[in-house]
Amino acid sequence: MTATGPSIGIIGTGAIGGFYGVLLARAGYDVHFLLRSEYEAVIENGLLVNSAIHGRLHLDGVQAYRDAADMPKCDWVLVGAKSTSNNALAPLIAQASAEHAKVVVLQNGLGVEDALRQALPERVHLLGGLCFICVHRSAPGVVEHQALGGINLGYHSGPATDLEQKALVEEGAAMFRKAGVDSSAAPNLAQARWQKLVWNMPYNGLSVLLNAGTSRLMGNPDSRALVKAIMEEACGAAAACGHPLPEVLVERMLMATDHMPDYLPSMYHDHKERRPMELDAIYAAPLAAAEQVGLAMPRVESLYRALRFLDAESGARQ
Amino acid sequence: MTATGPSIGIIGTGAIGGFYGVLLARAGYDVHFLLRSEYEAVIENGLLVNSAIHGRLHLDGVQAYRDAADMPKCDWVLVGAKSTSNNALAPLIAQASAEHAKVVVLQNGLGVEDALRQALPERVHLLGGLCFICVHRSAPGVVEHQALGGINLGYHSGPATDLEQKALVEEGAAMFRKAGVDSSAAPNLAQARWQKLVWNMPYNGLSVLLNAGTSRLMGNPDSRALVKAIMEEACGAAAACGHPLPEVLVERMLMATDHMPDYLPSMYHDHKERRPMELDAIYAAPLAAAEQVGLAMPRVESLYRALRFLDAESGARQ
Repeated sequence: MTATGPSIGIIGTGAIGGFYGVLLARAGYDVHFLLRSEYEAVIENGLLVNSAIHGRLHLDGVQAYRDAADMPKCDWVLVGAKSTSNNALAPLIAQASAEHAKVVVLQNGLGVEDALRQALPERVHLLGGLCFICVHRSAPGVVEHQALGGINLGYHSGPATDLEQKALVEEGAAMFRKAGVDSSAAPNLAQARWQKLVWNMPYNGLSVLLNAGTSRLMGNPDSRALVKAIMEEACGAAAACGHPLPEVLVERMLMATDHMPDYLPSMYHDHKERRPMELDAIYAAPLAAAEQVGLAMPRVESLYRALRFLDAESGARQ
Repeated sequence: MTATGPSIGIIGTGAIGGFYGVLLARAGYDVHFLLRSEYEAVIENGLLVNSAIHGRLHLDGVQAYRDAADMPKCDWVLVGAKSTSNNALAPLIAQASAEHAKVVVLQNGLGVEDALRQALPERVHLLGGLCFICVHRSAPGVVEHQALGGINLGYHSGPATDLEQKALVEEGAAMFRKAGVDSSAAPNLAQARWQKLVWNMPYNGLSVLLNAGTSRLMGNPDSRALVKAIMEEACGAAAACGHPLPEVLVERMLMATDHMPDYLPSMYHDHKERRPMELDAIYAAPLAAAEQVGLAMPRVESLYRALRFLDAESGARQ
């Protein structure tokens, strides 16, 4: 199959970048993967997604690069790397971007686009992508996809007019849908980020602190109540920051998590493998936003401080 | 040295019971120790306190008992066992008590006397003892005493008039002082219990959750801030429950802990050895008391729920 349509660059071919990159390439898009430690393995064996939904997806003859300078200038640039490395990533993103590229940040947390925007050229469009997916890397070039997979996209900043913004977001969503990914426009990116945080705040941190996946956290009445209380605190902060979320959100998220297979969030894997945890984007930034409007988040702050302690003690490679 | 003065029964010869029992026996008191699993070791080797303050204190020819029915009826009965076993202890305490014995509960937490009172005969006096001490058991019959050692005593309930209560408390404090223990009367037992909780609530739980002793908890700015925030929440609850504590208490406790040797609280050891943690007395009872007056303790409640999760997961022998 010959590549058609826009070219796509994947910056950070971990679980998220690998998964969406493989699906887009298999749908016929011209996808280019920037890799570091896994380059050799991917050149040799290709990329493999073991998906509970799509089956075994193998991508051979991967267009892989060790250096962003060698990549073609891409129309779409998907940033799947951790937000903890955004400072180092910005120049690579700029290098891989065509003149008016659409850069999509597929990261968790608040303020990740703001931080990246400072370091990107004005000519590029910056979008945020909220991934609802259970996925993790099991070996170099191998991604395990357990459940879900949708992406909601929202425009953050760049040279587009309001009307152009809508069209760009719709173009991106259509591209993902063509690759078999449920995708739609998030009319309000900040609100969408808060909504995602309502899930990430309890599960990411508690999986580390209590050394447990979603099934055990949901199966024990105390951790379940703690999850719920943290979700409600996050919803309160979202509302105080001007982004009220639907009343039923917490109950829906609890129910959705009940129906998920047992899942260990990325923060769990980061901590186990002594990588820095995404504490700034998932905890510090929302805590600061809430504090600015005078709202305390005692549960989230306690969790954040406990995680900062563990991060410091683990000697994670910052 | 022949034993003089009142007879003293020690129910639960762990770190606390062992320490005070040895000091009282060495001061000439007639002390009787109820033991279970450590009986053989104590009969053979006596009791040993390795004290950073008093040096090596060895008690030979220990008056040890396996069965409370074999003990003489004691004038003072010191309960050093964990509050988690109070239901089982009550009949033993009653058996070891003289007609108008003074029973002193040397346990942490709120409501421990209330719970025990129900199960004790009306004839006995019930007192609470707040121990400020860093002590732990290192082997059968061996207690390591790292720092501090004081006991504050307060009258809880029993047949004494107000005047008699004061005299009884003073008699107890004098007994401890004669044994080299700093001891005074707590004019308000409930307030004294809250004050002790201000220390126990952060350090006991966080030592388990973060797998760290006081030095590391105090040395990291995040865990230190978390300790302080939990202390302030406890002070707020104490005040709301009618027992306001001194303004300077939190700063004083932080400073005192800074100057302590690294200490792993009893809850840490309980969890490591898969014994049930004293979660009811240290967390559930104060949370319930605060809730009764309409006060939320979000940090303490979060910590409590996390600990309940770990307790359930550890399969502690309840």
